[in-house]
Amino acid sequence: MSTFSHWNEEGRPKMVDISQKQVSERTAIAQSKISLSDALYDAIKNGQIKKGDPLQVAQIAGIMGAKKTADIIPMCHPIALQGTDFSFHYEKKSEGYDLIIQATVKCAGQTGVEMEALTAASIAALTFYDMCKAVDKSMVIAETYLVKKTGGKSGDFTHEKIK
Amino acid sequence: MSTFSHWNEEGRPKMVDISQKQVSERTAIAQSKISLSDALYDAIKNGQIKKGDPLQVAQIAGIMGAKKTADIIPMCHPIALQGTDFSFHYEKKSEGYDLIIQATVKCAGQTGVEMEALTAASIAALTFYDMCKAVDKSMVIAETYLVKKTGGKSGDFTHEKIK
Amino acid sequence: MSTFSHWNEEGRPKMVDISQKQVSERTAIAQSKISLSDALYDAIKNGQIKKGDPLQVAQIAGIMGAKKTADIIPMCHPIALQGTDFSFHYEKKSEGYDLIIQATVKCAGQTGVEMEALTAASIAALTFYDMCKAVDKSMVIAETYLVKKTGGKSGDFTHEKIK
Amino acid sequence: MSTFSHWNEEGRPKMVDISQKQVSERTAIAQSKISLSDALYDAIKNGQIKKGDPLQVAQIAGIMGAKKTADIIPMCHPIALQGTDFSFHYEKKSEGYDLIIQATVKCAGQTGVEMEALTAASIAALTFYDMCKAVDKSMVIAETYLVKKTGGKSGDFTHEKIK
Amino acid sequence: MSTFSHWNEEGRPKMVDISQKQVSERTAIAQSKISLSDALYDAIKNGQIKKGDPLQVAQIAGIMGAKKTADIIPMCHPIALQGTDFSFHYEKKSEGYDLIIQATVKCAGQTGVEMEALTAASIAALTFYDMCKAVDKSMVIAETYLVKKTGGKSGDFTHEKIK
Amino acid sequence: MSTFSHWNEEGRPKMVDISQKQVSERTAIAQSKISLSDALYDAIKNGQIKKGDPLQVAQIAGIMGAKKTADIIPMCHPIALQGTDFSFHYEKKSEGYDLIIQATVKCAGQTGVEMEALTAASIAALTFYDMCKAVDKSMVIAETYLVKKTGGKSGDFTHEKIK
Repeated sequence: MSTFSHWNEEGRPKMVDISQKQVSERTAIAQSKISLSDALYDAIKNGQIKKGDPLQVAQIAGIMGAKKTADIIPMCHPIALQGTDFSFHYEKKSEGYDLIIQATVKCAGQTGVEMEALTAASIAALTFYDMCKAVDKSMVIAETYLVKKTGGKSGDFTHEKIK
Repeated sequence: MSTFSHWNEEGRPKMVDISQKQVSERTAIAQSKISLSDALYDAIKNGQIKKGDPLQVAQIAGIMGAKKTADIIPMCHPIALQGTDFSFHYEKKSEGYDLIIQATVKCAGQTGVEMEALTAASIAALTFYDMCKAVDKSMVIAETYLVKKTGGKSGDFTHEKIK
Repeated sequence: MSTFSHWNEEGRPKMVDISQKQVSERTAIAQSKISLSDALYDAIKNGQIKKGDPLQVAQIAGIMGAKKTADIIPMCHPIALQGTDFSFHYEKKSEGYDLIIQATVKCAGQTGVEMEALTAASIAALTFYDMCKAVDKSMVIAETYLVKKTGGKSGDFTHEKIK
Repeated sequence: MSTFSHWNEEGRPKMVDISQKQVSERTAIAQSKISLSDALYDAIKNGQIKKGDPLQVAQIAGIMGAKKTADIIPMCHPIALQGTDFSFHYEKKSEGYDLIIQATVKCAGQTGVEMEALTAASIAALTFYDMCKAVDKSMVIAETYLVKKTGGKSGDFTHEKIK
Repeated sequence: MSTFSHWNEEGRPKMVDISQKQVSERTAIAQSKISLSDALYDAIKNGQIKKGDPLQVAQIAGIMGAKKTADIIPMCHPIALQGTDFSFHYEKKSEGYDLIIQATVKCAGQTGVEMEALTAASIAALTFYDMCKAVDKSMVIAETYLVKKTGGKSGDFTHEKIK
Repeated sequence: MSTFSHWNEEGRPKMVDISQKQVSERTAIAQSKISLSDALYDAIKNGQIKKGDPLQVAQIAGIMGAKKTADIIPMCHPIALQGTDFSFHYEKKSEGYDLIIQATVKCAGQTGVEMEALTAASIAALTFYDMCKAVDKSMVIAETYLVKKTGGKSGDFTHEKIK
């Protein structure tokens, strides 16, 4: 089992020293999911917000959020991101819908972009909630996790949920 | 059914005009939940991070995150928060544990603090993930939602999950 | 003629003391304008960016920018904005087009929101440039000014350009 | 004609993937211009703000603004700037004066600093306006554009206005 | 003796609930002091930085820093500052000089601006150091403290150092 | 004697052009010190804040502050920090205690991290003050300086105070 790396001898959190790590190409994909009612789904699709698209706002907020990660998550290193994009799709369930949000982040650096992808996906989900909450406050952000990462010394990782 | 309020005539998102709303005392409670393995739970409790406590870092990040809400969520109004606090507890499941995170936020203003509470809870969950991910990257942020709000014209709200 | 209020006895800039001013309802409208070529206009309208709309991104950036004004403009007071919205329209010229951008900002406070409206309009213009510069780097942000303000001790103001 | 690069297949804005681009030395120069009345020009020059110099504040705000570009313009990459400086000069017109503001920004990276230079120039102009608006609210930010850029795959660019 | 108010039942830091406090006019004055060598003092005064004045940059950074306090100090409430100004003077010592920096901050709110004044003074001192460190890295920021505060339930406070 | 490097020909502050500098491994250590009364020291140690530890909050704020340096100090370059950690210890004096705070920051870049270390130490000291000021507002941040730096063209530096 690996050990906790983010803590110093005194039990206080530190920004891990990565000065001896190799620079490598890294990517991370994180997913978040929002459960919404049939009524809300219909309201979005039937144009009650006219040409408006909550996914457009969610994507912009998510990309800006990826860039804020080191400002939001205390021990994250500042990272020069090389690219960020999103995909969204709705899935019909027996009752209501799931909106699946995937964020992909890339960098070339000494540490990975897992937290950037997770933060981007979470902020996109929160923004979708904000843009639609006037209609329904009971949406649940159902599940957020790291889908996949590549690059770095610890190697590739794929979440068991999608294997 | 209520209507979408965050969009203008052109279908573009706007910061809603709240100038005609009454100032009222408002509170919001939001919850997030992380599923973790028995191995990670034991590592935290058995002092592998010595005196360190990931919940301490999560709480600080969450409170700072509540203050950043209007910077993170595009259409949120800047709000002078009057107080923010957290509670945390672990629940044993058949396999692994759930960490339950609750954020409470207060203000006196013309708009509510639902997004501040949801953002605070999400950022606390992401921070917990970051502080422990060296041990286990497969944690899932299992469920984030608005538990309760009071104050404001639309009145009180309690999520059906906790009724 | 009025005097410079933003400077102290030593000739250094200060954040003006507004503690003795009355709280009043205030609005400001600022305008920015971008000159673009016929080729760029056609590329936007003929769907080369598919469903994409640079105005959507510009509006979101502009609203987020209004909230950052006190962080960007050194002597601006932090202000609890009550609402921000935009209008956009294209005007055909003998050669090319003008995109007219108008930002409207509201608050109830001891100082006005002129800088918030001007900053919002400028950032929306810069964002439009960024979203389209891969096609044409020669766009000019042609004219940015305060169209109108209401509220506050100095009274209402309408720019001579629109009288 | 070049194509829009900042949009994904769904017509949503993305942070372009620059991971395959070469690192190169890059510079950008952007210009903004403010038209001011003879009365305001005289008030500044005749020492009504004593030792105070609005250009000093404008330059500091502009340099700080260059560093905030990726936070302000949604799809901009975070860039490690290597240097930023400004030049200013006043030009007498038949009526009033023009203040010419030029911002120069340098980096060594996979993407250019055009937006950083444009943002720096715009924020310097807005700050000049703020420092002088107590005397005259009718100033117009008359023209902002990219004067020149060097470096990068797309090669050098000089605006036709200065050819 | 007063009790620690910034900690919850679990020993974790919280943003104190001020919702029951009265709004009152509040001011705070904080001081910082930098010890510098005769050689550095002479270099500044004898125009080696031409028209440049490190105090100008320090004041602007300090005022912008006052506005960032709630973003920098984890448990501080966001506060709508009503005014911020600085005074500076040099004092000759037997060897070298002291630069005395005083920051004054005002608000009308439910909590005081002591941290805003202390943060403003500290950031002004750090900025002075940065602007002069090419000449002398051994400057010491010698003493930073709260000189005075007025307003609020706990009443006025004057530091014993200046009584 | 070295010359001031942060100023342009007009006497205005600039972000120094470092494009011709070599990338090198750099570290900086800065120290801050807070004088506190015996009463406050006892209150902290005797558990009046239960499990709470002001040093935990100070360390987190200091590390987040190191990352904000380029946003706080006007002419600092944005730097990709490679690691940040703190050490703390209390020293008994004839009357009261000194809390010694040391911040260590690392990067590989074209400019040093002296300002990042000084900013981190100062913000940790301010945060300690904030977490304890309900008990004692008269604490003094007694001395902040650069202890040591390595790397870069100007070579290593050790403050005379610790030689």
